[in-house]
Amino acid sequence: MTNSLIVQKYGGSSVANTDRIKNVANRIARYKKQGHKIVVVVSALGDTTDELLELAGRITDKPSNRELDMLISTGEQVSVALLAMALHKIGIDAISFTGPQVGIITDCSHTKAKILKVSADRIRGQLKKGKVVIVAGFQGMNSEQEITTLGRGGSDLTAVAIAKTLNADMCEIYTDVEGVYTADPRVVKDAKKLSVISYEEMLELASLGAQVMQARSIEVAKKYSVPLHIRSSFTDKEGTIISKEVKAMEEVLVSGVAANKGEAKVTICDVSDKPGIAAKIFTDIAKHDINVDMIIQNISRKGYTDLSFTVPAAELNKTKDVMAKIVNAVKAKGVVYNNEIAKVSIVGVGMKTHSGVAAKMFGALASKKINIDMISTSEIKISCVINKKYADKAVQALHSAFGLNKR
Amino acid sequence: MTNSLIVQKYGGSSVANTDRIKNVANRIARYKKQGHKIVVVVSALGDTTDELLELAGRITDKPSNRELDMLISTGEQVSVALLAMALHKIGIDAISFTGPQVGIITDCSHTKAKILKVSADRIRGQLKKGKVVIVAGFQGMNSEQEITTLGRGGSDLTAVAIAKTLNADMCEIYTDVEGVYTADPRVVKDAKKLSVISYEEMLELASLGAQVMQARSIEVAKKYSVPLHIRSSFTDKEGTIISKEVKAMEEVLVSGVAANKGEAKVTICDVSDKPGIAAKIFTDIAKHDINVDMIIQNISRKGYTDLSFTVPAAELNKTKDVMAKIVNAVKAKGVVYNNEIAKVSIVGVGMKTHSGVAAKMFGALASKKINIDMISTSEIKISCVINKKYADKAVQALHSAFGLNKR
Repeated sequence: MTNSLIVQKYGGSSVANTDRIKNVANRIARYKKQGHKIVVVVSALGDTTDELLELAGRITDKPSNRELDMLISTGEQVSVALLAMALHKIGIDAISFTGPQVGIITDCSHTKAKILKVSADRIRGQLKKGKVVIVAGFQGMNSEQEITTLGRGGSDLTAVAIAKTLNADMCEIYTDVEGVYTADPRVVKDAKKLSVISYEEMLELASLGAQVMQARSIEVAKKYSVPLHIRSSFTDKEGTIISKEVKAMEEVLVSGVAANKGEAKVTICDVSDKPGIAAKIFTDIAKHDINVDMIIQNISRKGYTDLSFTVPAAELNKTKDVMAKIVNAVKAKGVVYNNEIAKVSIVGVGMKTHSGVAAKMFGALASKKINIDMISTSEIKISCVINKKYADKAVQALHSAFGLNKR
Repeated sequence: MTNSLIVQKYGGSSVANTDRIKNVANRIARYKKQGHKIVVVVSALGDTTDELLELAGRITDKPSNRELDMLISTGEQVSVALLAMALHKIGIDAISFTGPQVGIITDCSHTKAKILKVSADRIRGQLKKGKVVIVAGFQGMNSEQEITTLGRGGSDLTAVAIAKTLNADMCEIYTDVEGVYTADPRVVKDAKKLSVISYEEMLELASLGAQVMQARSIEVAKKYSVPLHIRSSFTDKEGTIISKEVKAMEEVLVSGVAANKGEAKVTICDVSDKPGIAAKIFTDIAKHDINVDMIIQNISRKGYTDLSFTVPAAELNKTKDVMAKIVNAVKAKGVVYNNEIAKVSIVGVGMKTHSGVAAKMFGALASKKINIDMISTSEIKISCVINKKYADKAVQALHSAFGLNKR
């Protein structure tokens, strides 16, 4: 396909130093010479954002979010300028822009702004002139012309939003892995790279700890059917295409296995099984910005029940503070915390129309003598909470049980 | 004076690290608590600009000026965000802006843009709300919304331009020296700090190697009568006020002595003394962006003359290339270069109405057996080119001859 319009996003590891920036420039040049129109979205160099945050930390432990955005948005601005220079050096006409300059308009939520609109006229104009257009990822501008940033994974979001606005033929997400695998290759030696996966499956895998791409960007890509290609900036191999559910995919029962060791479990014991109690508990927790993942309520016994849920382990301390008050308010007997859990999940659109998948999963875990603590299911995934020390073993067992090593 | 509107500019050494930024914040807080309205202009942290240029240098030896501006303007943006955080931390309401955000509109000359207009409505609005307004120095935006930078000393220019637009009561330039001295204190031990000096004198001293402030910013301050106060960010001592010529100053014959060791001398020998020859020579040199300082033409002998001029030593190699062609074109006998020169100057508005100042200067140099190579005079300065190795000795002799140590 020549004369395609391609949006390419390069993450921090792809532009970690000037040599890697030159490497990225060479890749862009190859695409350009094939006749494609290229828009490039770049993250900050390597650990730049963390270094800037550390500087802020030396000044105050509570920086204002507006000033944080002013500070950290400089990281991507450095990247786009250097990449433009690297392209000029090898004879490619290119021009760099900040997010505000190309009209990435966001709401006012500093450090986690939502994109409201992309008025990409300036990008279109430069593409018409034959230039490679380089846009700083992760940043935008609100209606007051204040600089905003989009939060973790924000550069992915910039790329997807621009691809949507320009109706791009492909949005390539360059990272330091070669694509999406049936399981984490560090855990499962014969894990296979998936050549294609649906948005839904990728969404489940992303939120389950496969840290290739943030769930938020995949959601937006899904909503607007932006085709994604996740691939490595260090090789020329094809990566994984993420697109709408296609016929071929339906034959596959399970696409991947993921484990998330970053959660903790909270159980409120002997809470009164009355309407409104659960609502009160989770309203209070939400007020403190704690993201609850799985929620399980056991069968009521004599009007009392146990309620369990998982939260990010990093938010466990905050959760404990909130729970101390809630337990009194709802007159529960007590609360128990467990940090030593892992959530293992199988994901696949094929599950929708196949029965027996859950039974096969439980059987695979049982055969390894792994006890299941909590279960939650959706149309295309089944998750089990188990003891953290068995996480790798569980992933290997499931990978093999569903024949993913034979794909 | 309370309720004044004060513009303060802090240079890179004043904000070289987070401790110094906190120090600057404390100073601003004191002013604010005295009831003043404060606008702060900040340079990039310490050597940030040089570090960014080095990054660019690793990618290309000929970076585009537009991309250079995109790159180096991030330095000041980091500073303003950190300073705002430091002010918040000590309870001072403050808000940071980039140059483009506060409407510093420039022409299109990237890396050395001229300010065309400052539309400071946004600054005024925030001052009304009682906030300290922090503006990134050195940068602006052209009519195409491209980021531009103002060249060396650009942050001084930002401060002066904002002070002019807001009709500020004072523009304080904070640096790492305590003010303007009668001579370089490293050379002349009993050099005295001047409490007041005229724009004209400061202009001569600035262009003569006293590197406190760039000539360009002083010119703008003079044009619009913006009162300047040059002082140190490391002490509370008063520095040097620069203002219009005042009565008290007229009694002072000479305000200061300066030496510039950064020039080289070029002499074209036996050039035909005809109209148009000098014009041709200096037109060619100007085309190559070489700044000529002194120009001396000796008495014509038999229709031929020697023509000498000085250029920045850093531009001597470029000058040699240009001269090689010129010498042929004007049929001169040859050209001689001298790198081992220094220009020592005395500056003072009092000279205008006093005779004998030049004679006193030449006498002081002669008494130390220092030969004078070139002489140039203006209304308020006399400069002599001498052998570089006598520069310090000459400055000391002149400082003492004009009684500057007794002020």
